[in-house]
Amino acid sequence: MKVLSEARIAVVGLGLMGGSLAGALRGRCRQVVGVARRRQTLEVALAAGLIGEGTTSLADGVRNADVVILATPVRTILQQIDEMAPFLPSDCLVMDLGSTKRAVLAAMERLPPHVQPLGGHPMCGKEKSGLEAADPDLYWNCTFILVPLPRTSPEALALGREIVRAVGARPLVLDAERHDRWVAFLSHLPYALSWALVAAAEEVLTADPTAREVAAAGFRDTSRLAASDVTMMVDILLTNREMVLHALRACRNHLDRLAEWLEQGDEGALRIALTSVRRQRLEMF
Amino acid sequence: MKVLSEARIAVVGLGLMGGSLAGALRGRCRQVVGVARRRQTLEVALAAGLIGEGTTSLADGVRNADVVILATPVRTILQQIDEMAPFLPSDCLVMDLGSTKRAVLAAMERLPPHVQPLGGHPMCGKEKSGLEAADPDLYWNCTFILVPLPRTSPEALALGREIVRAVGARPLVLDAERHDRWVAFLSHLPYALSWALVAAAEEVLTADPTAREVAAAGFRDTSRLAASDVTMMVDILLTNREMVLHALRACRNHLDRLAEWLEQGDEGALRIALTSVRRQRLEMF
Repeated sequence: MKVLSEARIAVVGLGLMGGSLAGALRGRCRQVVGVARRRQTLEVALAAGLIGEGTTSLADGVRNADVVILATPVRTILQQIDEMAPFLPSDCLVMDLGSTKRAVLAAMERLPPHVQPLGGHPMCGKEKSGLEAADPDLYWNCTFILVPLPRTSPEALALGREIVRAVGARPLVLDAERHDRWVAFLSHLPYALSWALVAAAEEVLTADPTAREVAAAGFRDTSRLAASDVTMMVDILLTNREMVLHALRACRNHLDRLAEWLEQGDEGALRIALTSVRRQRLEMF
Repeated sequence: MKVLSEARIAVVGLGLMGGSLAGALRGRCRQVVGVARRRQTLEVALAAGLIGEGTTSLADGVRNADVVILATPVRTILQQIDEMAPFLPSDCLVMDLGSTKRAVLAAMERLPPHVQPLGGHPMCGKEKSGLEAADPDLYWNCTFILVPLPRTSPEALALGREIVRAVGARPLVLDAERHDRWVAFLSHLPYALSWALVAAAEEVLTADPTAREVAAAGFRDTSRLAASDVTMMVDILLTNREMVLHALRACRNHLDRLAEWLEQGDEGALRIALTSVRRQRLEMF
């Protein structure tokens, strides 16, 4: 297994996450090779200095790579793991940036034994997507989850940690089950609520466009995630289905209780519940 | 009815909203008189230059005022309207900054006929509360809703508009019913969802405090409103109960549909719904 400074790294998928990671890794490794479906994406990434080489062929991109990082939507990652398997060189570290981990790790389990698999999930992003939004500072100071398989060698995990630190992030090693449960509550549920807020608000916004002027910072922040990339979110929700459904049920129970207190005018219960949640939120940030 | 530059304005309640408004009005009117329960609050506001005079007596504060602006929680506003009624001078403009308007306007209807009532609701704020968070620029560029009663004179409404513009905000005249329905969806529902998110996330956060490291910008923004002042929110929710319950039901229907699509793995429906909401959000901001 190569050290980072000597590694040739293939970044597959040059959207917000892949483009940003490629740019953050340049100068910290031997070469960054971008893999994208469209030649135009490669040209933009080359011109922006985010990658040193580019190819539209997944096979060519990974053939001489010491590290492959998959930065596509989760269900594309699942396909690409199988698709590139025959072309991966010995001792190659295969990572991904997908937002759900059980499905990805199950696919990585199928990789040939001469390859080192390591799940990854950086806890950063923007509601904007695409290479135009890429920013090499995106990973700065974020938690970057690493999910090894039992077969992952200590050396491979160490290289994974080195890559995470090289882009300015903090590695956090978790198992896939815990990762998927946590992000269901802390990332996918916020998206679902943000989506439901905008969907519900359409009732007043379409009835009278002036209502738009009444939507202030509170609405803007609470609804921000509703602008997230659709393909990314569909893949996330479908590959973390049970956990997301569990989080949705838990949240709905709380909303139902809130509605009950309002119906009953139960000021005491309301005050206690609002106070305890407020305290929890203040402790967090 | 005085013009703004000659008006003596009493601001009742020197928290985030009242303190900020007082500071923004200073120098634009003859005098700003602060009314607060505690002498210490007055001293801080005087020292910060937010008010020119201060009193802990509501009666004394309003006795010589040309304009009274109530900047307390909604149910305190309801009490203060009745409490100060005997002391209000002729032609005095009585405004408020409360976040719900039907209850406030119903109370204002009881004011003596020699007084001019005008409901108000500036669409700005912070999740921080109290005078320490006050900022005379808080109102800059925000929509400031004005709700006149049938008895409100054109001159009183004109003075209300002048005050709104003086603090840098944009006046928007609405009726109380429409106001309350709109803010139920655009302000109170976001709070409720933010609250429910934090309440639900406690399940993973208390089980393992490390989960905190996984809560990123998406969670932070979606949960921001959960840190809002509890008394303010209890008053808002209880005085806008039916509208909030209506918005909660509408939102729950959307969440239930989302859960159904997930259970059925209905990718087509999911993609259509996520795309249409994303478009709606992108059009808004």
